[in-house]
Amino acid sequence: MEKVRYGIIGIGNMGVSHAHNLCGEIRGAELTAVCDTNPERLEWAKQHLPESVQLFDEPEAFWASKAMDAVLIAVPHYDHPGMAVKAFENGYHVLVEKPAGVYTKAVREMNEAAAKSGKQFGIMYNQRTNPLYIKLRDLIQSGELGEVRRTNWIITNWYRSQSYYDSGGWRATWAGEGGGVLLNQDPHQLDLWQWTTGMMPKRVRAFCHFGKYRNIEVEDDVTAYVEYENGATGVFVTTVGESPGTNRFEITGDNGKIVIENDKLTFWRLRVPEPQFNREYKGGFGQPECWVCDIPVAGGGGPQHKGILQNFTNALLHGEKLLAPGEEGILGLTISNAMHLSAWTDDWVDLPLDEDLFYEKLQEKIAHSTFRKDPAAAAVLDVKGTH
Amino acid sequence: MEKVRYGIIGIGNMGVSHAHNLCGEIRGAELTAVCDTNPERLEWAKQHLPESVQLFDEPEAFWASKAMDAVLIAVPHYDHPGMAVKAFENGYHVLVEKPAGVYTKAVREMNEAAAKSGKQFGIMYNQRTNPLYIKLRDLIQSGELGEVRRTNWIITNWYRSQSYYDSGGWRATWAGEGGGVLLNQDPHQLDLWQWTTGMMPKRVRAFCHFGKYRNIEVEDDVTAYVEYENGATGVFVTTVGESPGTNRFEITGDNGKIVIENDKLTFWRLRVPEPQFNREYKGGFGQPECWVCDIPVAGGGGPQHKGILQNFTNALLHGEKLLAPGEEGILGLTISNAMHLSAWTDDWVDLPLDEDLFYEKLQEKIAHSTFRKDPAAAAVLDVKGTH
Repeated sequence: MEKVRYGIIGIGNMGVSHAHNLCGEIRGAELTAVCDTNPERLEWAKQHLPESVQLFDEPEAFWASKAMDAVLIAVPHYDHPGMAVKAFENGYHVLVEKPAGVYTKAVREMNEAAAKSGKQFGIMYNQRTNPLYIKLRDLIQSGELGEVRRTNWIITNWYRSQSYYDSGGWRATWAGEGGGVLLNQDPHQLDLWQWTTGMMPKRVRAFCHFGKYRNIEVEDDVTAYVEYENGATGVFVTTVGESPGTNRFEITGDNGKIVIENDKLTFWRLRVPEPQFNREYKGGFGQPECWVCDIPVAGGGGPQHKGILQNFTNALLHGEKLLAPGEEGILGLTISNAMHLSAWTDDWVDLPLDEDLFYEKLQEKIAHSTFRKDPAAAAVLDVKGTH
Repeated sequence: MEKVRYGIIGIGNMGVSHAHNLCGEIRGAELTAVCDTNPERLEWAKQHLPESVQLFDEPEAFWASKAMDAVLIAVPHYDHPGMAVKAFENGYHVLVEKPAGVYTKAVREMNEAAAKSGKQFGIMYNQRTNPLYIKLRDLIQSGELGEVRRTNWIITNWYRSQSYYDSGGWRATWAGEGGGVLLNQDPHQLDLWQWTTGMMPKRVRAFCHFGKYRNIEVEDDVTAYVEYENGATGVFVTTVGESPGTNRFEITGDNGKIVIENDKLTFWRLRVPEPQFNREYKGGFGQPECWVCDIPVAGGGGPQHKGILQNFTNALLHGEKLLAPGEEGILGLTISNAMHLSAWTDDWVDLPLDEDLFYEKLQEKIAHSTFRKDPAAAAVLDVKGTH
């Protein structure tokens, strides 16, 4: 293969952004096909994309076309796993938008189809290209921070106005999106939370508020507490209702603490690990000597979506290792599902997750939904510059 | 009254510190009496305090002496309410160390005795003299921040080594202290949390870990989630086991957010309140214009213990308003008790607190305690420079 031919299914907000990137920004990639069942979206594609791009108004012809080597899935969340399975069955490599899906039952099936196909499978976790989180993962995985004791992510700078929610009929409904801030805005942080630390919670207790700040039926405000196997604890706070909001990720370990905030990573490094100090110290109020370390991190936010597209293209062309293997999409989604289930049952949720119970409860939410939107309010918003 | 004569009961760590302050540092105050049942402590007083200070080796003679106008209570936590009641009954004004007590049942009785006595009643909430928290309270109470939506206090810089706990037999036991970090280190933050915001939680869900980092039977690590009457939520994270720890208090409201960290207060102020922006905005990803405001706050940590002693003295001499009325000690303790009760019952705790249930559970902890310390390890630690 000299060039990877990409087909995009779903040419909405994110699909448009990816189409622009694939038309010239990614070495070794070309956009050769687009599929969308919405005539307006397809009309947009006709007017804005190169003439060489084949257009499909229904998936079956798209799958049958062999017009591409890899499919980029940018349809609404619920359809991610089903579309991916279809793509694998038709012999395509798959790059799926986040979240991996809405419920882990379906995502597990997607992962199984991927394994069976032997094709490359990636997920659009573009924040894994951010040098800050790459460095954090490095400092934890290499042992510099020592055993992790606490994680604390305040990620409340996902401000979304009511007009944002009014812009798409599927947005922020149980049937359309399967959740709110956890499903749409937080998949990146839920992924990075476990990817950087290398730890999944063993149980979750979450407090979700549904339609608290916006006229929506799903959660727009969440506080979650988690416990890990090694005894560490964690807190995750998120909302779309606060401005200017905060994005501050603090991780403490035996050797000090790391904080990522304001696009800066700082490591408060203890000269001796805290447990050693505690064993040896005989005084009253002393504590370990601490060095505030400025850790070099490349500026900017990294190549983001383009970085994932380039990495996936390089994986197909040159065997480059995937930054964000698709199979890992289930991890962040499991945490997200556990948070919902904990709030719905007002109780602890143990991991591994009871996937059937979550699915059942989600179906109840969909069945009992009385939320109707005015479809006329729908509009394609320009998401350039947002993640 | 030209001078307020103070008697200190309990001349341990804090009592020693207050004794030093009352011998010359506080205008209009003099130390005239000290009571402690421990001969070694009394011997310390004899050697280090002015000869004019009367020494008492048992409380009854101290109460009967009329050697002072006001009693400063610095005995172990459990005895605070009982000693205060005694002091009021004997006609003294009372300044009590924090916490107000260990369980709110007793503290309520103390408050009733204070009301009945007509005497002045203060509590050593020295952090209320810190200009940062005074300014925060001002910004909230004056409406600058707007309706409070979220509070988040990470207060993990209360590092205490095992040697600290080994230094006093009563420390960190259910029978001796009635709790750990919540009872000993956090009373200031639990007070400021409600004092600055003017809000008490309506329910609490807390996760306490007992003897996680130290060989103690009480909590040394706590994460708590609270909900307020107005729909706001809050998180409080604390431990003695992390170094260097964090002290970061974030409060968000309709008009932006305030963060106190590194002895600095910053106000991210929205040009128009968020709810108004949300009503009027018709675009996709916009948010309110935000001004980062440096708010002038006097440097240093304020007069702290000396400030409370001076204020209490001024209240008696000149009718100055108390910064920390003793009756308010029950508020922070109620939150503390609710956190313990939530962890013990692994469930929500609604406020007003079920005081009898808390008392009953605490008695169970005391009865089932098997924790014994080596009394020989006890030592008076120098707490100058700590709060």
